[in-house]
Amino acid sequence: MSRRELNKKEKRERIIKASLSLFSEQGLENTSISDIVEKSDIGRGTFYNYFKTPKDVFCEILDELNCKINFEVKQAQVGLKTAYEFLYASFKAYLDLVSTEDMMLFHKNNQNQIRSISYGSESILSLVLNMQEDLKRFPEVAFADKKYFKMFSLIAISSASELFVCLHHNYFDASKEEMAHFLANVFVNGLKNYSASS
Amino acid sequence: MSRRELNKKEKRERIIKASLSLFSEQGLENTSISDIVEKSDIGRGTFYNYFKTPKDVFCEILDELNCKINFEVKQAQVGLKTAYEFLYASFKAYLDLVSTEDMMLFHKNNQNQIRSISYGSESILSLVLNMQEDLKRFPEVAFADKKYFKMFSLIAISSASELFVCLHHNYFDASKEEMAHFLANVFVNGLKNYSASS
Repeated sequence: MSRRELNKKEKRERIIKASLSLFSEQGLENTSISDIVEKSDIGRGTFYNYFKTPKDVFCEILDELNCKINFEVKQAQVGLKTAYEFLYASFKAYLDLVSTEDMMLFHKNNQNQIRSISYGSESILSLVLNMQEDLKRFPEVAFADKKYFKMFSLIAISSASELFVCLHHNYFDASKEEMAHFLANVFVNGLKNYSASS
Repeated sequence: MSRRELNKKEKRERIIKASLSLFSEQGLENTSISDIVEKSDIGRGTFYNYFKTPKDVFCEILDELNCKINFEVKQAQVGLKTAYEFLYASFKAYLDLVSTEDMMLFHKNNQNQIRSISYGSESILSLVLNMQEDLKRFPEVAFADKKYFKMFSLIAISSASELFVCLHHNYFDASKEEMAHFLANVFVNGLKNYSASS
C-alpha cells in the first residue's frame, strides 16, 4: 500500500471511530456532520470524500459489525457435535461480540435504526441462511419442511438480539453464559420434539 | 354525552383515522401535520386541540392497538387446559388482529418506530407480565427461577412479531394457523423439557 493509500485508509477509520463514539453517546438521530468533523479532527470536505451523511457512516459500521458477527459465529460453530453445542456456541459468540461496553451503548441508543437497517441486509440474511443450512446436520432436528428451518432460524436469531436488548433495559439480570444456555436449551428442546408433536 | 362532547370525540377519531391511513401509506417519517389536516378535513388549530405532533397521534394509535391486542389475547386464553392450547390461542389472537390489510401495511412501513416506541411501553410490559404469570398455571412448565419465565415471555412475544414482519417481507409463506402452530409447538416443547436438561 502506498503512503497515500495508507493515509486515506487512516482517515476513513478515524471518521468511523469518531462516529461510533458519537452514535453510542447520543444516537444517530442527534449526530450531525459537524459533530463528526469536529470529533475526528478532519476537514468537512474530507468527510465528503468518504461519506455523504451520518447515516452512511452508520450503515458502514453496522455492516462491519454484522460481518464480524457472521465470521465469529461461523468460527465458533466449527466441529460441534450436537444441536445444543451448536446453538450455545452461536449465541455465546454473538453475545461476546455485542456485550462490550461500547457495543451495549451503541445498541441501546440506536436500537430502532439497527433493526430497520438490518432487516433484509445481506449480512443478516446470510446469518439466517447459514443457520438454516447448518441445522440440517443434526439428527435431533426433525423438520420435514424447508420453510420451518427458515422460520426457526429467524426466531432463534431475533430472540438472541431481543434478550440482549431487554437485558440492557434492565428487564432482568443474567450473564452471557446463562442467556446462551437458556436460548440454546429452549430452542434445542423445541426442535427435538417438533416432529413428534406436529 | 353532550352534543359538544360527541362532536369533540368524533373530530379526534377523524384525525386518528386519517393519520393511520397516511402512516400506513407513507410512514410516520414522511407524514406532516399539513397532510393530516388535509386528509381529515379539519382546521390546523383543531389538530392542535388534540395533539402536538404526528408522532403523538402515532403513539396514540399504537397504544390503542396494543391495548386491543392485550384484551383479545386475554380473551382467547380463557379456560384453556394445556400450555400448547394456551400459546396457540395467544399467537393466533395476535396474528388475527395484526393481519388485516391495513395493519400489515402499517407495520411494514413503520416497523422501526413501532419497535422503538413499544419497548418499555406499559401495554407491552403488561403483555409480558401476564404471560409470565399465566404460564405458571401449567404443570408442563418447569422453570425453577422467576427470571426464566420473564425471559421466556420476552422471546415468545418477540418471536411472534418477528415472524409476522418477516412474512410480510416475503421471507417465507405461511398461514396464520401454521405460524401459530409452529410457534406454540417450538415453545411448548422448549418449556416441557427445560428442567430435565438444564
